[in-house]
Amino acid sequence: MTTLANDLLIRALLRQPVERTPVWMMRQAGRYLPEYRATRSKAGSFMQLCTNPELACEVTLQPLERYAFDAAILFSDILTIPDAMGLGLSFAEGEGPQFAKPIRSAQDIQNLPIPDPETELRYVIDAVRVIKRELQGRVPLIGFSGSPWTLATYMVEGKSSKSFQKVKSLMFNEPQQMHQLLDKLAQSVASYLNAQIAAGADAVMLFDTWGGMLSHSDYLEFSLRYAQQVRQLLNTKRDGHTIPTVLFTKGGGLWLEAMADTGYDALGLDWQTSIAAARARVGDQVALQGNMDPITLYAQPEVIRAKVAGILAEFGQGSGHVFNLGHGILPDINPEHVKAMVDAVHEFSPQYHR
Amino acid sequence: MTTLANDLLIRALLRQPVERTPVWMMRQAGRYLPEYRATRSKAGSFMQLCTNPELACEVTLQPLERYAFDAAILFSDILTIPDAMGLGLSFAEGEGPQFAKPIRSAQDIQNLPIPDPETELRYVIDAVRVIKRELQGRVPLIGFSGSPWTLATYMVEGKSSKSFQKVKSLMFNEPQQMHQLLDKLAQSVASYLNAQIAAGADAVMLFDTWGGMLSHSDYLEFSLRYAQQVRQLLNTKRDGHTIPTVLFTKGGGLWLEAMADTGYDALGLDWQTSIAAARARVGDQVALQGNMDPITLYAQPEVIRAKVAGILAEFGQGSGHVFNLGHGILPDINPEHVKAMVDAVHEFSPQYHR
Repeated sequence: MTTLANDLLIRALLRQPVERTPVWMMRQAGRYLPEYRATRSKAGSFMQLCTNPELACEVTLQPLERYAFDAAILFSDILTIPDAMGLGLSFAEGEGPQFAKPIRSAQDIQNLPIPDPETELRYVIDAVRVIKRELQGRVPLIGFSGSPWTLATYMVEGKSSKSFQKVKSLMFNEPQQMHQLLDKLAQSVASYLNAQIAAGADAVMLFDTWGGMLSHSDYLEFSLRYAQQVRQLLNTKRDGHTIPTVLFTKGGGLWLEAMADTGYDALGLDWQTSIAAARARVGDQVALQGNMDPITLYAQPEVIRAKVAGILAEFGQGSGHVFNLGHGILPDINPEHVKAMVDAVHEFSPQYHR
Repeated sequence: MTTLANDLLIRALLRQPVERTPVWMMRQAGRYLPEYRATRSKAGSFMQLCTNPELACEVTLQPLERYAFDAAILFSDILTIPDAMGLGLSFAEGEGPQFAKPIRSAQDIQNLPIPDPETELRYVIDAVRVIKRELQGRVPLIGFSGSPWTLATYMVEGKSSKSFQKVKSLMFNEPQQMHQLLDKLAQSVASYLNAQIAAGADAVMLFDTWGGMLSHSDYLEFSLRYAQQVRQLLNTKRDGHTIPTVLFTKGGGLWLEAMADTGYDALGLDWQTSIAAARARVGDQVALQGNMDPITLYAQPEVIRAKVAGILAEFGQGSGHVFNLGHGILPDINPEHVKAMVDAVHEFSPQYHR
């Protein structure tokens, strides 16, 4: 077990004292970086990049060469589990993800296997091992998965959706089938994250990208309940260390209290949620990760710096904050603007940890 | 002045006692109705339908023939004001709204006129007059406008947007220009809504469709501030009657307290916001309008009835609730399902007003 040279992220997620606020960025290994685009075109398709552990490692480490980030995040896709279940994931150019065999019947749900991560998702777990080896303990590695609800939306819709008509119709008309699907997904996600932890992930994050499309009561019943089931099934100790867990529901700002009660160490915040208000509501239970509007990175560097300062001031004094965007970085951001953000966190945050 | 035969909506918006909860539906005059599609194809384009007061009246009244709705809402588009300012609105088939001359410079903003509704938006005000004449006081007529922020998003982006990169970049980099644009829009919106009120609208609603894409602080500074300016400029008395005002920010559930402080009589709620929680937070200041998930209307009628019962129970005893969806009805809903919703409100709501 390598000791981490920089464990700011781990300490902040566990609300232990830190010298400055750690910073990383959702989708930090991505298309805004020319070196990512080069590796991607070498790999061929997006899925060929995801399924090649050496290349996945290469793009995972790229942003760390450019920026003083305090974490690496596994390069992968949130839809690897349904693909391993046999749904046939592909990415049509400019179209987003698609499944060849979406869920269409109760029988389809009953037939779904729970994938063994060490065999059916071996390429991901191998990528974790390769990245850990190459990181040499510089910064922690974050593992992740899509949430059961978010995976279910793609599996039932067959692709991205604006209205979520198919998956919500299943939820409204056949709630037992929906629960059966979500229970299988929760078991699969937990087993997948546990394999990532065993292979070396130092923290794990559950991405509930579409929980925010639900009403409050449907969110509790169909999204949060299964995020909690995942949490209960996680092995969050490795070699005596705690593996912190993060739950991010985009559009979930209204439900932070319920989210904080599920046992995750930290909550991801989208940019709509005031981090000051969030801290007042749940800051004695969980750390908070976020939450600059990703579009801020189109602004001039001095505007970016002022916005970073504002978010740090909003969170205020003490540990329990991991600086991040409120959602993934967009593909056409100027890489220099990311540097302005990271440098501002380094420059302005120590005053909040004295 | 015609007295209203059914003024449940007005009383509920003013939190006065009612016998049952009034119900109407955002986009109730719309493509889900075959009779709407017939009138629409008679008119030609969507804008030809909007700009013809007799046909706009025809589609406004169609849902009242089918359903026991407690309000009519003016058939129009939220983008009539920027069109009257000279931006050149059109609707490409399946593409949504587009402006031929979007805002591209400080000069463009300075040159924008504040339209005179009785001349440049005459077709809308005439539609209000025709609808009022044809309604003969059966139910109230709701007038509406897009909010200054929401109009600005389309005017700067030139069309619908997912990321709002252009308008947010203007907001971040040139906040004074943005404020100048929003101030002109607030004056234009207020003058437009005042003309609708003078022509007969019995209530008015401000649609802030995209306020929820902003961070909390940006929402207060760039969206809510101008919604409040509009409110302050409204003439909400006509012939001794109060014209209730409704503010709807989609995705604004986090900010209800600030919204309730702006002087609107009622807040529209999207479906993510628990109406019970909303009432506990601001129900002593404002009425609440909403908030069933529009996708519920794809479910079986018995599921729809149960969801209606749930929302009525969540709001609970007493006046101050107008039943609605949390957003507009989708075009491929079965009209029978709308009937299930309306009938359920009529059947289940009287018990909450004893």
